[in-house]
Formats: sequence, C-alpha cells, structure tokens
Amino acid sequence: MSPATDPSTTPAPGHGFRTVAIVGLGLIGGSLARALAALNRPPRVVATSQAASNLEQAERAGAIDAGSTDPEAVLAGADLVVYATPLDVTLRLLADHRGRWPAGAVVTDVASLKGPVEEAMRALGESARYTGSHPMAGGEGSGFGHSAADLLAGSTVWLTGRGAGAAGVEALWRAVGAHPRWTTASEHDRLMSWCSHLPQLASNALARVLQESGHAPSDLGTGGTDMVRLAGSSPEMWLPLLARSEAGAALRDLARAARELADALDGRDLEAIEDWMRSTRSWRAGAAEPPPPPPAPAT
Amino acid sequence: MSPATDPSTTPAPGHGFRTVAIVGLGLIGGSLARALAALNRPPRVVATSQAASNLEQAERAGAIDAGSTDPEAVLAGADLVVYATPLDVTLRLLADHRGRWPAGAVVTDVASLKGPVEEAMRALGESARYTGSHPMAGGEGSGFGHSAADLLAGSTVWLTGRGAGAAGVEALWRAVGAHPRWTTASEHDRLMSWCSHLPQLASNALARVLQESGHAPSDLGTGGTDMVRLAGSSPEMWLPLLARSEAGAALRDLARAARELADALDGRDLEAIEDWMRSTRSWRAGAAEPPPPPPAPAT
Repeated sequence: MSPATDPSTTPAPGHGFRTVAIVGLGLIGGSLARALAALNRPPRVVATSQAASNLEQAERAGAIDAGSTDPEAVLAGADLVVYATPLDVTLRLLADHRGRWPAGAVVTDVASLKGPVEEAMRALGESARYTGSHPMAGGEGSGFGHSAADLLAGSTVWLTGRGAGAAGVEALWRAVGAHPRWTTASEHDRLMSWCSHLPQLASNALARVLQESGHAPSDLGTGGTDMVRLAGSSPEMWLPLLARSEAGAALRDLARAARELADALDGRDLEAIEDWMRSTRSWRAGAAEPPPPPPAPAT
Repeated sequence: MSPATDPSTTPAPGHGFRTVAIVGLGLIGGSLARALAALNRPPRVVATSQAASNLEQAERAGAIDAGSTDPEAVLAGADLVVYATPLDVTLRLLADHRGRWPAGAVVTDVASLKGPVEEAMRALGESARYTGSHPMAGGEGSGFGHSAADLLAGSTVWLTGRGAGAAGVEALWRAVGAHPRWTTASEHDRLMSWCSHLPQLASNALARVLQESGHAPSDLGTGGTDMVRLAGSSPEMWLPLLARSEAGAALRDLARAARELADALDGRDLEAIEDWMRSTRSWRAGAAEPPPPPPAPAT
C-alpha cells in the first residue's frame, strides 16, 4: 500500500490538487475520500490511519488509491493534506508532521473549532500553507463504516485562514457538493459555541434531569426523543472541543431562559408563555419579525 | 349528513362499541376515525366538528359514516364519545354536552393532561362513564389534513379513570394498533410535566437564546436543527396545557443542570463534562447503569 504518485496520468481538476492525502478515515475523512473518488476527474487520493482495517475497507470500497499506517509515506507526494481526526489528535499530528509536508503542499483540517488549529499552525510557522475547514456534516454514526460519498453534499463548510491554497481548498469542497463560506476563526468559534456546543450541551442537560428524576427514554414522545438524541453523541469527539469551548456564556443564557419560563409557568403568566411560543415559532420559520425585547439581566 | 344509527347492521367488535362519536376531526380525531374505518369489523363512526370542511373531507375520505356541525345529532346514537379537541375546548364541551349523552354511553378524551378532565367529569357527576385517554402520537402537522390511519399504530396510549367503559376503551385503542397503559391522572400529569412539557419548553428556551443572540435557524447543524424543531409547535395546542402544567420544577432543574455544565465548562473541569456525556449516553442507550449521584440542591 505505498502511496506512489504519478501526476502525469492525473488531469488537474478545478481545485488544482493532483494528490490529496487524507489523515484519518472516520466519518468525515472517509466521506471526503469517497466523494473525491466519485468525481468525474478524481485526484489521486491517499490516506493514512492508525486503523489498518479502515485503510483496507477504504481500498476495497474504491475510496482511496493507496493507504498506509505510516504517515511519512502518505504525506510525501501530497499537494493537499486534510487532517480529519479529532481536534486534539489533529493538534498533535500537525506538530509531528511538520517538516514532512512537501514544499508547496497545502494543509487543511476539518475540526469543529478553528482558533486552536490556526494558532497551532502559526506557532509552527506554517500559517502560509494553512486554510481551515469545518464541514457542518455528520450524524449519530461515526467511523468509516458510516461514511458516504454524499455526506458532504449540500452541507455548509466554514473556511478560515486564507493561506496560499485557499482558492484550491474552496474549490475542492465545492467539487464534492458542499457550500463553502468564509469567516474568521474567532467568528467561527463563537458561532459554534452558540449553534453547535450549546444545542449539544442542552441535550445533555435535558437528558441528565430526566435521568435524575427517574424517567426513561421510552417515557418520551417523538418530540422529546428528538431532544435527547444528541445526548447519545460521542464523548471522544466532543471532549477536545468542549475543552476549548466558549459556550459557558450561552449555557448560562439558556439557564436564565429556562428560569424565566419556569417563573412564567409557576405564575400562570400565559401572556408571557404565548409570547415565547409565538416568537420562537416565527424565528424557526425564518419570519422577518422585529426581534423580541432584550432579556432582563441575568440575576 | 345526519348520523342515523342502525345497530342491527353493525356486528359488535371486541371493544363492544357499535357507534363511536368523535368530537373534533383534527390530527388525532381524524386519525382515529380513519383507523376505525379501516378495521375489518368497523364500528359506525360519526363525528362533529365546528369546521364543516373537515366533516366533508372526512366523509369523502371514507373516515366517517356521517357527520354534523350539530353535536346533539351526533351524540344521540353514540355508545362511545371521544373528545379530540384541545384541552380547554374539551372542558367547555363536556359541560355543554352533559345531559345529551345517551344512557350508558361511555366518554373518553385524548387531552395531554388527565387531571383537569377527570376533575371536570367529577364536578359534573359523570365520573362513572369516564375513562381518560392520552395517545402519545402526533407530529409537527396538525388538522385533519395531516391525519393518517396508521398514526396511532404502535404509540403508547395512557389510560386513566377506569369508568364503567374502561375495558371497552382499552380494547378500542388496542384495535387500532396502539399500546394502552394504565396509570392515574396525577402520575400521568407528572410524567407529562417531565417528558412532554419540559422537552417542549427546553426547545422554546433554546430557540429564544439563539434568537436573542442574533443567530438564525440556518446557522444550526443537523443536531441543533432537531433541538429547535419543537419550538415550531402550535401555541393554540400548548397554551391550555401549559396553563395547567406543573413543569416549573422540571424547568428549574434544567436551569440548574445548564448552570452546572456552564461551571464545568468555564472551569475546564473535563472530568465532570465527560461524566455527563457518558452518563447521558448510557441513559439514552437504555443501559442498566447505577443512577448518578443526586443533584446538588438548586441554589
């Protein structure tokens, strides 16, 4: 499984990368490999993974041209290296792999926080080759076994950093059907605190109080079942993110909102409850309504 | 559309009701009518609704044998009367219809709180004919247009009250494929506070803080989108329930849990967060693990 590269036989696609090296063949890495392999003019796709079984599965599935548990062999011929490992692993591997990236090779990653990766590349003096990616795709399943060629299609991919390979990274995501959107690492990470970490932790909080009060998942209706689905998410994936998350303020805001609703309920303030329900229903429907009055300061 | 009844032509099914009168042809009433009409040995199904269009639709769909906007005509021949209206409407109609129920007719309803209905029937001196039902079925859609013959199949139906017709009501729900479970009104309503009202209001609270912080539903990933789905629920259906809900304590518990998680996050207490995530994941998977330590008292 040596990832030999023969650029002369590979026509250059729109993104300009002839050989894409994917580090980690989990849900996202595996799906990216499958999607690239399915292109009309696929780049050469090579991969490295600690799990030899993932590499074998990916080769059998035709998702990669070659793979190796030895990253050195895989990195050697790459125009683009995509780190598709959990955030803490990515941070470790970037430091390990520095000096093994070919001259001119572009580096990106798919971690759900972009600040720590950008900072790591800056500390390594490698910012010039780095563009951060965060594909908003996934699901309950994890691992190569759940990967799919169309997982990324239609999903937003946040891009940060704008290194030398920025245009190519953007074109690569577009090629697999995703919708790239540029932002800064700090804006991205703030957005994730609210729109990713907060819903995740809200589900954990809800599940915990149901558990503590002696209720079972089977006591829930369809709506409640949806609300605790995220509570089944993988701690392995989430802990490195939460270790660097700024979602504390958002969680305190949720606590404040829950208390306000409790006060309205206990005080039988139906007008307040109706306002909440109508306002959040309009928000969810995307209606252009004037924003509600600002919340009372948290007490 | 006069609901004339001819019991002699209708074989008595397992539940023993020859004519079932359904009051209200929304999602649940409409689905019950459709399911009954689809039985091998259907009872005669008659219905009353304020919306003549619903009655016409239901007749065209073959879901009812006859219908009338005049409840008196519909109630006259009924062995079983099913109130499938919002809770506040049901409470009003029970008082209005008292004295129009045939001798021996059984009364049930489908409201999501059973205490207020049980209390209303007690106050009317009509407890003997009353058994409460709460089918845990539904969805985002409402109204007859969203009803389906299989909506109730497989869903839990909570039963309370055990009036004279209890066995027949239980058999009727079984006949349409639902799973009846007996409880008391107070236990049922406590369960709903935690397992129905709390998830609903948690979704409203989450949507509100996202709205107030300037985020749009389109900023959410798939998991977050699930978490705000209930925020689109109908205020018309929920307000009569929330007006009588005891979910204040559950909401305060959720607020406490969200604060604890915020503290763990801000203090970078990864062990505590990992414990939350593992414990709620096990709970959701239905694993028989020892319960977590009791929560600290709310402050």
